[in-house]
Amino acid sequence: MHTVDRRSEHDVIVKPSPVAMVWNEPGRAQDALAVPGVHLCDGEALVEVELATICGSDIHTVLGHRPARSPLVLGHEQVGRVIALGAGAVRSDGTPLELGDRVVWSVTVSCGTCDRCRRGLTQKCRTLAKYGHERVHRGWELSGGFATHVQLRAGTAIVRISEDLPAVVAAPASCATATAVAALAEASARVDLDGALVLITGGGMIGLTAAALALEAGATVIVSEPDASRREFARRLGALSADPRARADGAERLESVLAAAIGTDMREVLVSIEASGVAAGVRTAVAKVGVGGVVVLVGSVTSGGELCIDPESLVRRLASITGVHNYDARHLERAVAFLERSWRTLPLDELVGSTHALAKLDHALEEAASGRHIRVGVAPGRRAAP
Amino acid sequence: MHTVDRRSEHDVIVKPSPVAMVWNEPGRAQDALAVPGVHLCDGEALVEVELATICGSDIHTVLGHRPARSPLVLGHEQVGRVIALGAGAVRSDGTPLELGDRVVWSVTVSCGTCDRCRRGLTQKCRTLAKYGHERVHRGWELSGGFATHVQLRAGTAIVRISEDLPAVVAAPASCATATAVAALAEASARVDLDGALVLITGGGMIGLTAAALALEAGATVIVSEPDASRREFARRLGALSADPRARADGAERLESVLAAAIGTDMREVLVSIEASGVAAGVRTAVAKVGVGGVVVLVGSVTSGGELCIDPESLVRRLASITGVHNYDARHLERAVAFLERSWRTLPLDELVGSTHALAKLDHALEEAASGRHIRVGVAPGRRAAP
Repeated sequence: MHTVDRRSEHDVIVKPSPVAMVWNEPGRAQDALAVPGVHLCDGEALVEVELATICGSDIHTVLGHRPARSPLVLGHEQVGRVIALGAGAVRSDGTPLELGDRVVWSVTVSCGTCDRCRRGLTQKCRTLAKYGHERVHRGWELSGGFATHVQLRAGTAIVRISEDLPAVVAAPASCATATAVAALAEASARVDLDGALVLITGGGMIGLTAAALALEAGATVIVSEPDASRREFARRLGALSADPRARADGAERLESVLAAAIGTDMREVLVSIEASGVAAGVRTAVAKVGVGGVVVLVGSVTSGGELCIDPESLVRRLASITGVHNYDARHLERAVAFLERSWRTLPLDELVGSTHALAKLDHALEEAASGRHIRVGVAPGRRAAP
Repeated sequence: MHTVDRRSEHDVIVKPSPVAMVWNEPGRAQDALAVPGVHLCDGEALVEVELATICGSDIHTVLGHRPARSPLVLGHEQVGRVIALGAGAVRSDGTPLELGDRVVWSVTVSCGTCDRCRRGLTQKCRTLAKYGHERVHRGWELSGGFATHVQLRAGTAIVRISEDLPAVVAAPASCATATAVAALAEASARVDLDGALVLITGGGMIGLTAAALALEAGATVIVSEPDASRREFARRLGALSADPRARADGAERLESVLAAAIGTDMREVLVSIEASGVAAGVRTAVAKVGVGGVVVLVGSVTSGGELCIDPESLVRRLASITGVHNYDARHLERAVAFLERSWRTLPLDELVGSTHALAKLDHALEEAASGRHIRVGVAPGRRAAP
């Protein structure tokens, strides 16, 4: 157990010292950085991490597939408990944050006052900071989830969760689940999901979560995914599954599954959620969407090859292509609400295939990069892995 | 003057006989087809055409740039007066259509009951027919605006206009104006136009009308258009104008005009209306739109070359690309309302540069194809050209 010693209104000493894992460059082992004292400004909070999960973007960074401002503390999907509070810290609904609250929080820290925040695009704030993405600097060393503690900044959407919700279900809320909620929100702004035919390309964490959300909204869902175990998971959620590869057998071939779903009454794909991030997935998502349909691009967070389209085909179909990146506070609130009402009936806990101690983070990232599991967890050593 | 002789509940004889101009193939002169008797089904109406205007798509067809089911009567932008009614014919607002109503009407005829009509996409009805686009067949010879009369089918949105509204202002309502309204409706569903920076690529009829609509909504509008006289017209509407060509002089160069509009407070282009239909315009529209912005493609109605985009750039900008093709009844109603309240203050009447007798249709189409005027009018010979 830790002790929390409040030295002044703003200064907190935690013993043993909080530790964050610091990533420097591809191929180099991460260093443990001890942070004995934390200065909490107004509106801030210190959270003890219960469990973090490894997002695909953490893997992209570690493999050197995207630029990153190192040294940095990775990790932005996690669940924890508030152990110290700055003055006036609040939850996303405006109520006071309390010591002992079990919480998840947004990946973004936003000012709330710039032109983009006022337009509702808090995730593109002019002075944006992001957990798990910032160069380590004095005063915000505890800025990522791969740590024993995270220092939450004012302008973070903090959402309380129940004591029952399994940590493996809660941790992905702040990235995969909330992003899937944001993607579905874009789709449902244009199309009534109830009864709609929805194609999801990519059966990773976002794709499968989007499938669960769309099914709950009454859609018929096809998950197109080359990996057989992920297709099996999609079917357990209640979706149809399809294999996008040309050599796939007839029954599972995407073209066959689509033809059967479209049927003789000429249904159309009204929503494509592109969650694979690969060029072939994007092409399929755009090609298959029907009249008045919407393609939500959510997987393309690294340069994934060009998409070449005939503008006339979008015009004549009255089709839309929309990019979704991160989410706002309402989406995180809806993500938590979805997980709270669904975890007892859906096998969401199985999406985290294994969990490692924080000290084994490099190994956990290697395992995550293998693609064997949809998510791999990291639990700070002071608490037992679930 | 004509006489209208009602032979039965359904059969009408008009004297002299209505005449429609029939187009067969590129390069061949159009034939005048006399249609002595018209059979009006329930919900139908016979309209005497006052003025038709030549749309860009008529020119595309005549030049052989797009497939067409000939022989056909072209023309789908027109204004006329109801001279005979089938039982139960109604205006788009549901009130009874009356003899003597001065009207414009939708380019589309929709069933109102199929899945697409129920989704509000009446312009993509499963049993769609379109004025000015149908192969001439017995029972619907008077199917296009380049005629003395048009037979309006049940399922057409018919909107009454005032006696004051100049015919040259009213005629384009049913294509260019209503389509511009639909394009702006897509944009304003995502972005508050009041105070927004709007880029319009292409200063033809749709682009200039969209500029006028966006200005009325409080936007700052830049019209990017290579033709100097069209840029001048955009400025008269109150827009900024820019020349997209690389060799344009500094003051008018698109990059310079954009930089000045963006200014030091980092405004972003929140709406791009692509009304040129050319590949360079589409590329510019997509490249220039900012975070949370929307690109409305409305000009690409012929195959205009591929658009190649990096999906990541849409995702990270949370940007949307939306195709708009035709419109629904509400858009036509709003188009008429806009023209009625604007024609006395905006030089909309000047958009029709010249008007020819119906018998001179081939010549009028040649003149329209020259691009000298934004619109060229065609007035049936029985009425004097305005």
